[in-house]
Amino acid sequence: MKIKEIGEFGLIERIHTRAGRSSYPVVIGIGDDASVLDVGSRNQAVTTTDMLVEGVHFLREAIDPFDLGFKSHAVNLSDIAAMGAAPAQSFLSFGLPGDMDVEIIDTFMDGFMEVGEGVPLSGGDTVSSPEGWIISVTVIGIAPAGRVLRRDAAAPGETVWLCGPVGDSAAGLSILLGKSRQVSDENTEFLVQKHNRPLPQVRMGRILLEAGISSCAIDVSDGLLQDLGHICESSRIGAKLQLEEIPLSRPIRDLAAANRVDPYSWALRGGEDYSLVFTVKPENEKKLRTVMEREEIEAAPIGKIVHGNRIQVYSGGKEIDTGPDGGYDHFRTHQDK
Amino acid sequence: MKIKEIGEFGLIERIHTRAGRSSYPVVIGIGDDASVLDVGSRNQAVTTTDMLVEGVHFLREAIDPFDLGFKSHAVNLSDIAAMGAAPAQSFLSFGLPGDMDVEIIDTFMDGFMEVGEGVPLSGGDTVSSPEGWIISVTVIGIAPAGRVLRRDAAAPGETVWLCGPVGDSAAGLSILLGKSRQVSDENTEFLVQKHNRPLPQVRMGRILLEAGISSCAIDVSDGLLQDLGHICESSRIGAKLQLEEIPLSRPIRDLAAANRVDPYSWALRGGEDYSLVFTVKPENEKKLRTVMEREEIEAAPIGKIVHGNRIQVYSGGKEIDTGPDGGYDHFRTHQDK
Repeated sequence: MKIKEIGEFGLIERIHTRAGRSSYPVVIGIGDDASVLDVGSRNQAVTTTDMLVEGVHFLREAIDPFDLGFKSHAVNLSDIAAMGAAPAQSFLSFGLPGDMDVEIIDTFMDGFMEVGEGVPLSGGDTVSSPEGWIISVTVIGIAPAGRVLRRDAAAPGETVWLCGPVGDSAAGLSILLGKSRQVSDENTEFLVQKHNRPLPQVRMGRILLEAGISSCAIDVSDGLLQDLGHICESSRIGAKLQLEEIPLSRPIRDLAAANRVDPYSWALRGGEDYSLVFTVKPENEKKLRTVMEREEIEAAPIGKIVHGNRIQVYSGGKEIDTGPDGGYDHFRTHQDK
Repeated sequence: MKIKEIGEFGLIERIHTRAGRSSYPVVIGIGDDASVLDVGSRNQAVTTTDMLVEGVHFLREAIDPFDLGFKSHAVNLSDIAAMGAAPAQSFLSFGLPGDMDVEIIDTFMDGFMEVGEGVPLSGGDTVSSPEGWIISVTVIGIAPAGRVLRRDAAAPGETVWLCGPVGDSAAGLSILLGKSRQVSDENTEFLVQKHNRPLPQVRMGRILLEAGISSCAIDVSDGLLQDLGHICESSRIGAKLQLEEIPLSRPIRDLAAANRVDPYSWALRGGEDYSLVFTVKPENEKKLRTVMEREEIEAAPIGKIVHGNRIQVYSGGKEIDTGPDGGYDHFRTHQDK
């Protein structure tokens, strides 16, 4: 069925039926001029938003609509995770060509809600688009007042930790683009899945905040070096990383070996893994390890925060040349990954 | 200067310098993973979002970027106004062609901030767009818990009030599209201004809530009949309007007379005026009139909420045929206005 056949209100109705049930603390969800979030005393609303454009962020014929829905929600949930907040409600705006099949939106919504784990869709907008598909997502989370994990809160002496994979998503993309020869169906599926359905580290973010383990975190969306660079810039500090401490998955090692590339080039510069980088004061390290064991969460110490203003990466005791800090800039040429 | 020359971070920096200073209750604005709004005890965060697409909502060569910025913020502030909330922070996402002049964005931002009256821009996203310009705006407001002006709170016996113009924006659009012959430069400027720079009724919304005068409101974005229809549907009631009670501006009367059209067709069906329609219980009418006089706000009683499920419009004591409830549906043919 075409969108123009059911009209805007028909489309909203279809989205609404897939939006999840709004309950406290969402006081008003879809259906009024705006959505209302009850934020009790001593709490803060934490909000993030992202836009995805067909032909830039995805190719309609190349991506499964379920994965697109999953990922478009995941990247926003990841930002909420990086603040240590609990996601509370989401907003979704669509720009859609009128001749698009409605069933694609249904599948998109299934993926969108799948990764949300109960976060209700509370509003949005649906408009027509003359060319491609446009997706704009906003997520609001709640965090205890004054305790969110900030980019500008790192201090020398703290350890840099990483929770979640780095490089896997870029390696998966490399397979999808035909730039890397696949090594096995199993590895391909693993890496492509990391690219198409990245898992936001919401649980880890909340634990770091609630247990008072960290006060500084960022999610890896543009690449480890670039995102850690944002922490360094905001906190006016530097960092020293130990290359060998950065965990690599078995599939990324296999793929790199088969294609004779350095897996760490993916790990340092590859974006869209949505892992968490966070810093921990020495006196909180024991608490972190206790919590990780109890909650069965894996994370790795990969370096130290130091005085200075740049990131140095060491391998075998020597500093290596990482070149200019790469990452993704939407209006410049895509850096090699 | 082209956007691709300054890159994403250059663009963000330029927007940032125009974003207004974030201060309490915005704890973190632009520059972190997400924005944080401190919502103290007994308050609620109220959120709305809208998307505008070039070629659908505006033609780049036909609209002044200042007006576009003004209007894209105004329509969201109007939704916050319709809840009776105080706007607290805004989010702005751009999809932009790389060859677009950066100065256009600067001018857009000037208009965006002009209508905001101090509401800080607290975040957003900037991505490239292969075709046209895409704008997605989110505004979060704060309201006392449990007291927002809802669509579903109207009851029989209440009076329907209108604050702000209706029809002026549609009349202005009609001039811009060359469908109506202009009558005077003064009238043209007045009506086109109403279309390009609609004023959200933020102050009226807050007063209605804070003084306990109303508990039901909506903003007129799609047309008086259609938006009042949303109240009727949500509240499961009907309404009777007196056509002659709907205030018409002098310019719309002049334009209608010169073009031999019924000005009420614009008033009943014309969208984008961003006036407020609200309902008031008989016992609160005196309080409303007192507040209107004290605050120098104009509003007019235009009808009554009744049992039933439809809107009847009376003129000279007789019900008139208003045809099917018209308005704007983004995926269907544009109704005549």
